[in-house]
Amino acid sequence: MSEHLDRLQRALGYRFRDDSLLRRALTHRSAGPDNNERLEFLGDGLLNLVMGEAVFMRQPKSAEGDLSRLRVTLVREEALAVAARRIDLGEVMLLGSGELKSGGFRRDSILADGLEALIGAVYLDSGFAEARQLCLHLFAPELEHLPDPATLKDAKTRLQERLQAVSRPLPEYTVLSEDGPPHRRVFRVRCRLPDDGGESEGEGASRKIAEQQSAERMLQRLSTSGERHA
Amino acid sequence: MSEHLDRLQRALGYRFRDDSLLRRALTHRSAGPDNNERLEFLGDGLLNLVMGEAVFMRQPKSAEGDLSRLRVTLVREEALAVAARRIDLGEVMLLGSGELKSGGFRRDSILADGLEALIGAVYLDSGFAEARQLCLHLFAPELEHLPDPATLKDAKTRLQERLQAVSRPLPEYTVLSEDGPPHRRVFRVRCRLPDDGGESEGEGASRKIAEQQSAERMLQRLSTSGERHA
Repeated sequence: MSEHLDRLQRALGYRFRDDSLLRRALTHRSAGPDNNERLEFLGDGLLNLVMGEAVFMRQPKSAEGDLSRLRVTLVREEALAVAARRIDLGEVMLLGSGELKSGGFRRDSILADGLEALIGAVYLDSGFAEARQLCLHLFAPELEHLPDPATLKDAKTRLQERLQAVSRPLPEYTVLSEDGPPHRRVFRVRCRLPDDGGESEGEGASRKIAEQQSAERMLQRLSTSGERHA
Repeated sequence: MSEHLDRLQRALGYRFRDDSLLRRALTHRSAGPDNNERLEFLGDGLLNLVMGEAVFMRQPKSAEGDLSRLRVTLVREEALAVAARRIDLGEVMLLGSGELKSGGFRRDSILADGLEALIGAVYLDSGFAEARQLCLHLFAPELEHLPDPATLKDAKTRLQERLQAVSRPLPEYTVLSEDGPPHRRVFRVRCRLPDDGGESEGEGASRKIAEQQSAERMLQRLSTSGERHA
């Protein structure tokens, strides 16, 4: 085990003064009461701040909404799990026997929580500067290749901005139907462009999802027809 | 104006090296393009972290869920507006003429955003330690009187825990009806205790809200009947 912990700390670029903090950070709640849940709470706040600061600095012209969307791509569970796998975190997590058998060490949520807990543990072990450094180190590949914020906007926003850019009126969304039992509702929505009468439809488990799908399809139609007319 | 800024900085317990950061933090987006929106994004992350750390340290036995609920009470908009009013932030905010006329300097959202922007500005001006100190200073009264985390749980959770504590089975929630047009739905939900058949009802704009209301009423019934039987 100690060899594993050595390897992990080399991958982190950080050596713990207090080994008990490191062990707690690696202990999933299934493995006992002295687990990483509280450290995860602390690490979550740290990671959120440091990634927020990183996009703030790297995108000096971006508005708040773009910064928020960029940060979400960095701190969502799947992104954390990717970073956790880069340092082979699954191999050193301590899980209860049930989680072990069901392959919990491969699960995104357990890896993401463990990574946040490590960040929180470094903060308690050494303070903000070291925890910040660790966050930047863990997410260096993602920070080097930040996506274009414009691609992160939801479909309704992109459609609205695209129409406004050429002074066209805003699309109208109408619920066409709402079927199924209360716990498995299906909404169908129509997106209509009032000036040329173009229409698309979307469906989903909520009106919001259905609207987004109808907007996505309208964007595709506009792109296709744009190419044809170009 | 400069006298106002002096007074504000005394209230903050912080003096800016870079006055332009201070002025930007106080500039609402209605007053121009060089406004406080990006600083607010940064300050939001800082405040969230520092309040998270503060409840983490002050509640060494609290589980993650309790820490989260405590933090929410500290960083929600109304709480930020209260802290902003303590330092008379409304008097120094720069607003566009429309917002000025409609009394924007009294609005919770504008005050809360301004406060977060100030925290972000201090971070850029001096770093983490000073920004952290400012957060702790601004919310010292709230941090001294943290609520009991148990009182912050939602009604369904409290009902569940109360029943489990005396080994009673969990309540059952059933949607009784769902009426009204799609954009103004009304759900009616029944909460039923399977062992003694006790029932309560709730209603609201979503199933979740209706369930919480039914659970709240069931808690009231249990408290009343408990007193009668005591």
